[in-house]
Amino acid sequence: MLLTEMISAVQPPDEAAMAAARARQAQLAKPPGSLGRLEELSIQLAGITGSVYNRMEQPHLLVFAADNGVVAEGVSSAPQSVTRMQTINLTRAKTGASVLAKHFGCGITVCDVGVNAEIPTGAVLNRKIAYGTRNIAHEAAMTRAQAEQAIATGFELAHSTEADGIGIGEMGIGNTTTSAAVLAVLLNAEVETVTGRGGGITDDSFRRKKEVIRQAIALNHPDRNDPVDVLAKVGGFDIAAMCGAFLGAAASRRPAVIDGFISAVAALCAVRLCPNVRHYLIPSHASYEIGYRLAMEDMGLEPLFLLGMRLGEGSGCPLAFQVLSAACAIINGMATFDQAGIDAGYLDEIRQGDKFTVEGSR
Amino acid sequence: MLLTEMISAVQPPDEAAMAAARARQAQLAKPPGSLGRLEELSIQLAGITGSVYNRMEQPHLLVFAADNGVVAEGVSSAPQSVTRMQTINLTRAKTGASVLAKHFGCGITVCDVGVNAEIPTGAVLNRKIAYGTRNIAHEAAMTRAQAEQAIATGFELAHSTEADGIGIGEMGIGNTTTSAAVLAVLLNAEVETVTGRGGGITDDSFRRKKEVIRQAIALNHPDRNDPVDVLAKVGGFDIAAMCGAFLGAAASRRPAVIDGFISAVAALCAVRLCPNVRHYLIPSHASYEIGYRLAMEDMGLEPLFLLGMRLGEGSGCPLAFQVLSAACAIINGMATFDQAGIDAGYLDEIRQGDKFTVEGSR
Repeated sequence: MLLTEMISAVQPPDEAAMAAARARQAQLAKPPGSLGRLEELSIQLAGITGSVYNRMEQPHLLVFAADNGVVAEGVSSAPQSVTRMQTINLTRAKTGASVLAKHFGCGITVCDVGVNAEIPTGAVLNRKIAYGTRNIAHEAAMTRAQAEQAIATGFELAHSTEADGIGIGEMGIGNTTTSAAVLAVLLNAEVETVTGRGGGITDDSFRRKKEVIRQAIALNHPDRNDPVDVLAKVGGFDIAAMCGAFLGAAASRRPAVIDGFISAVAALCAVRLCPNVRHYLIPSHASYEIGYRLAMEDMGLEPLFLLGMRLGEGSGCPLAFQVLSAACAIINGMATFDQAGIDAGYLDEIRQGDKFTVEGSR
Repeated sequence: MLLTEMISAVQPPDEAAMAAARARQAQLAKPPGSLGRLEELSIQLAGITGSVYNRMEQPHLLVFAADNGVVAEGVSSAPQSVTRMQTINLTRAKTGASVLAKHFGCGITVCDVGVNAEIPTGAVLNRKIAYGTRNIAHEAAMTRAQAEQAIATGFELAHSTEADGIGIGEMGIGNTTTSAAVLAVLLNAEVETVTGRGGGITDDSFRRKKEVIRQAIALNHPDRNDPVDVLAKVGGFDIAAMCGAFLGAAASRRPAVIDGFISAVAALCAVRLCPNVRHYLIPSHASYEIGYRLAMEDMGLEPLFLLGMRLGEGSGCPLAFQVLSAACAIINGMATFDQAGIDAGYLDEIRQGDKFTVEGSR
């Protein structure tokens, strides 16, 4: 599928459905706005699906796994082999995100878009584009054609996944380095302001990581007005596929849940390619990675919860789906002022004597 | 039950279980600390129950309903009759908190400790102490004996409720006024800094609300070192019973979940009576009521999520139980580094050839 087709497949939100949801919220028996973001999410969901009443009974997490050539520069605390192992472990409900997904009844698909090793066939979906990217400190991560292939892979997987909502996560040693590089370019920001310690590295490695990112940007000259160029030159297969997944979820009119830092950077790439994607994005937790906040601010998004998480894998998505399901439950299930009996007529009625019974009129 | 007995029934947390949970978290296959508060909550739960492995399968919400004489001063936007109606509606899964409780499989008990009306018997537990409090602008809200009775009522209900965790909410028109009065006294704070608009009032009513609180404190002279005196003079039956429920949940070694502003003030009363209660408290959402943050800071607590809610009723508790259940799932279900195969021996093994299978050793 061509990128232009993917972009034009994303429709603006349904304003009429949003207005109807807003009107419904105003009728529910509570002080106006007192359920805060649960109200706002229900209105956003109406815009996404075109219906006032929605469900979040079948959420699904897509995890894109890939390796990054830049790990040769010593920017990560974990060896590259961890990508392969955790990719497999993700399918066995033993990693952080997959434990949470299983616990909350959230489906999970783990997709290899570029792990630098063979993955046993079976549980992991094989969409491998290459055995890891090139080292961005010395050359472009991938060709433009490979970046487009990764985006299309993510788009098609998200678009074809049967679910009420799509969460988008990743597994790839070195990907906080590539994400920081992509973000620095897209925001035209100092590397210092967007780069964190990822999985946990020493002071020396942290200095080296920032140096490598500066070098990669200086050497590859990514064009900040061309997100595909940025992804190809200093990104990774995971981020590119996730960018496509955000487009694909939006094109199929389903909410697309952002996990942490890398997921937020991929979402930002998708928004830069197609501003309508913004309306389909649902934040989850506030990542502790420093660049997360900048990416979210650029998209005008605020996280839903404050759990101090920085694991990745999509680990914030299962809980975000719980919040979305709460938002659905409220608009679907709460009584209106009329139904609750808190209107003038009702007050007259009880003033005339106790006519209230537990069964009531509802 | 005497207050001294309730207080001495609350044990300190089990330090050995907490140390074992901390050690377990360090072995799980993730960067140290990368699951943030899900890790901290699992350690806190171990301290609460004395076991490393816990469940949150049967959470329960207690909602204490009462009326406040101070509404005669025009401090609330809603009429007092709303307390009775919403108290009944809470039992029918039609109000905000009860919709969420039902949605997430959280039990709910609604307890009348002082509604100023008859409540049809049946779904609402009748523990009425009086038909509303007196007007604190002119006299003490209740006698000291009534305050102790309300605390004992909450304690006994929480202590006897079968559940993995207890959420503590309220329903009572005028109770942001009484809560602000109690908080101003306990923190020795300016009324201006602890008083918000509650359910939503006009500028005039808001000024009047602050004036009434100042008057109530000046007239009644509550002793800030005696929380029972503060509750009796400027509090309410709901806050006093909730304070008792926090004590009762802690005494029965179960997590006690704070909802919003009023619940936080009641928790603070319990902590002032018995500092050990602090270890049993679990925050939920960040209330928009201005005093919430001050009460939480005084207890050293930070909210788990940012949903802009200010409904009350215990509406934050069902989602907080989801976060607690996620914390349990992580420590119960994640693989350790050894189990994940991410140790030196495993790396040797895969270097010697592809011996990995999806079944693996786990």
